[in-house]
Amino acid sequence: MSLNLQEIGLRARAAARTLASVETQVKNAALLAMAEAIDAHQDAILAANAADIADARAQGLTPAMIDRLDLHGRLSGITADLRRVAELPDPVGRETDFRTLSNGLQIRKRRVPVGVLGVIYESRPNVTVDVASLALKTGNAVILRGGSETLRSNSALVEVIRGALAEAGLPLDCVQFIDDPDRRYVTELLRLSDYVDMIIPRGGNKLHTLCREQSTIPVITGGIGICHLYVDETADLPAAVKVIQNAKVQRPTVCNALDTVLVQESIAAEFVPAVVRRLAEDGVEFRADERAAAILGPHEQVKPAGDEDWDTEWLSLILGIRVVPDLDTAIAHIQAHSTAHSDGILSTDPKAVAHFLNEVDSAVVYVNASTRFTDGGQLGLGAEIAISTQKLHARGPMGLEELTTYKWIVIGDNHTRP
Amino acid sequence: MSLNLQEIGLRARAAARTLASVETQVKNAALLAMAEAIDAHQDAILAANAADIADARAQGLTPAMIDRLDLHGRLSGITADLRRVAELPDPVGRETDFRTLSNGLQIRKRRVPVGVLGVIYESRPNVTVDVASLALKTGNAVILRGGSETLRSNSALVEVIRGALAEAGLPLDCVQFIDDPDRRYVTELLRLSDYVDMIIPRGGNKLHTLCREQSTIPVITGGIGICHLYVDETADLPAAVKVIQNAKVQRPTVCNALDTVLVQESIAAEFVPAVVRRLAEDGVEFRADERAAAILGPHEQVKPAGDEDWDTEWLSLILGIRVVPDLDTAIAHIQAHSTAHSDGILSTDPKAVAHFLNEVDSAVVYVNASTRFTDGGQLGLGAEIAISTQKLHARGPMGLEELTTYKWIVIGDNHTRP
Repeated sequence: MSLNLQEIGLRARAAARTLASVETQVKNAALLAMAEAIDAHQDAILAANAADIADARAQGLTPAMIDRLDLHGRLSGITADLRRVAELPDPVGRETDFRTLSNGLQIRKRRVPVGVLGVIYESRPNVTVDVASLALKTGNAVILRGGSETLRSNSALVEVIRGALAEAGLPLDCVQFIDDPDRRYVTELLRLSDYVDMIIPRGGNKLHTLCREQSTIPVITGGIGICHLYVDETADLPAAVKVIQNAKVQRPTVCNALDTVLVQESIAAEFVPAVVRRLAEDGVEFRADERAAAILGPHEQVKPAGDEDWDTEWLSLILGIRVVPDLDTAIAHIQAHSTAHSDGILSTDPKAVAHFLNEVDSAVVYVNASTRFTDGGQLGLGAEIAISTQKLHARGPMGLEELTTYKWIVIGDNHTRP
Repeated sequence: MSLNLQEIGLRARAAARTLASVETQVKNAALLAMAEAIDAHQDAILAANAADIADARAQGLTPAMIDRLDLHGRLSGITADLRRVAELPDPVGRETDFRTLSNGLQIRKRRVPVGVLGVIYESRPNVTVDVASLALKTGNAVILRGGSETLRSNSALVEVIRGALAEAGLPLDCVQFIDDPDRRYVTELLRLSDYVDMIIPRGGNKLHTLCREQSTIPVITGGIGICHLYVDETADLPAAVKVIQNAKVQRPTVCNALDTVLVQESIAAEFVPAVVRRLAEDGVEFRADERAAAILGPHEQVKPAGDEDWDTEWLSLILGIRVVPDLDTAIAHIQAHSTAHSDGILSTDPKAVAHFLNEVDSAVVYVNASTRFTDGGQLGLGAEIAISTQKLHARGPMGLEELTTYKWIVIGDNHTRP
């Protein structure tokens, strides 16, 4: 049976209208009901998940891919997140920018939900709960489109979530799930501009490109991080090694992990071997430019960098390393190769730091810190729906506020425009 | 000779990088130099404009269309606007959201230019100067694409603007103009996502739809206003007639002009004839629903409303009028037919007002005021690049701040993520 996305959109719009003026405590009650329902139905959820995993094994998916879709041992983390979202402040209804104009018109802005979100994601079924909870908290209806390899897990989770919505007296269509793996529904969703206000892709470069190319709805692109750290001659070098190690090794498979380290020439003879020595112990392989390679000499874990290496998001224990004469060359490298996600400088020179902060236009620009902090939780947002690397609406980690917009409210005394 | 939009994009990106860190006073000096240059070259500009007008006449354009492209008598207004923009505060570099996390990381957001704007517009050549000045003030490079009927006027203005940029020591490519009327350059511009960060269409519905359909770059859609006022039984009725008259008649050709008035049934017998009597004197024609028509009886300036009339932006002296039983029916009508630009309630009942403000999700929602105030100048923004009716980034009038975005700045003491 084929799905009618127009109808799904229409139902989402209607649900969003209801949800927009629901009190915070009702939304929080629904979030807590979701957590309880997941606890209560964990056997059914895990059975569905086991069936997805069995299929994935039969289809020869890699262990890393199977790990990503596995919910066993992870449901308690998911329900803990739900309870945490319930405790976060609700941005909806907050009023700001109060002003009375000279003609007496009273103006303010009020935070309101965006409306209907379309979220397209891959693999991890925890995203289903994650996105549904953040959308609900911010008064947005959501149309979810998960990966085909987790169809049963996602369907089971959505059924439980909708049960909790019903229990809380909220429209079931606040959360809808496209349970047909046919790819044409992705394309249809991207063109549902009469009903959907915002598309959030969560996945790789191909998915983001597809959305940007096909969507007639505003898309939040992001999540692709070719991240840089530049170490200048004034940096605390032993500390810099630790920051680079953390940025590369602590969790190499994520978008805020370090991809390229740039080292000022004047300290390269000392610093490049120090970095390689320390990170090689963690199993890191290097892609070195000519000067770094010359300093290092032959090394099992060092290969010469090809041109395309500087434009690669490694997502693994590989690190590009390049020696540059000065700050401006480092900045030019970052401007040419960064995805404008997370880039930083390690330096104690205030002038160099100020220049770097001016010239590097990434979503998050760091001074003497690991790029791994680009995360809604780490930066104090309390939650994260995505990391935006585009310029409009939101940049970097997007929390609850970034799932809202505003309307102007203008109150007069029967004012007319002269 | 064909244009190379990739090269135009590349040059714009380079100019934007330089412009991003130019001091406010240099940008202001360039704005003042532009005003002086327009004063100094008005003969050349007006000669080019006269040639456009002669062509337009030869091609049989309507007097209204010719009026729109005529610069005669309007240059002093344009230069006055330039001088006003020079005086506005510069949002670039402003830092907000300072915070020190418990781990000692110092966080803040800094306002930065969006980067490169692509602006596609029609008819009015004053938009060329308007957009160039607001882009420059906010540190953005801009690629302009004007209407073919004003090619010579726009080319003359851009030449003068670029001369002023050179005089101020700024890159000429801060302002580039696509001087070939071939429509394929619009499509190419919309897909220049490597270099352009934001597309702003200024024109009719067709242009906005084209941009939404074709662009791989975020588009600010807007400027289409099907605007409503609902008059309830508690409204100050004589004042309400004046507000409606102002909203409809003061400038009927613009997007914030009133399109439909909704009248509560209990006052319809008194109020509908009062509105028609007053506005008929101004030459307004009405499209009345059955109940309003029955109240009015036969009238030269009243026709029955067809279904499509409620979805028409009149842009002329036509006004839809519908009698509704209650507030919720009025809200449902607005939700079904509004373009979410500007809608209002005329009422003295606080409960009705609060309900209307909750339920009507338009860019600007009015209480006891004319919809004509939806304008950057009127709402105190000092300038206006566009009126957004989409939900992301900015809603309603967009001023200087809305031409900027932010980057996160995170300062540590060699912090690593645990």
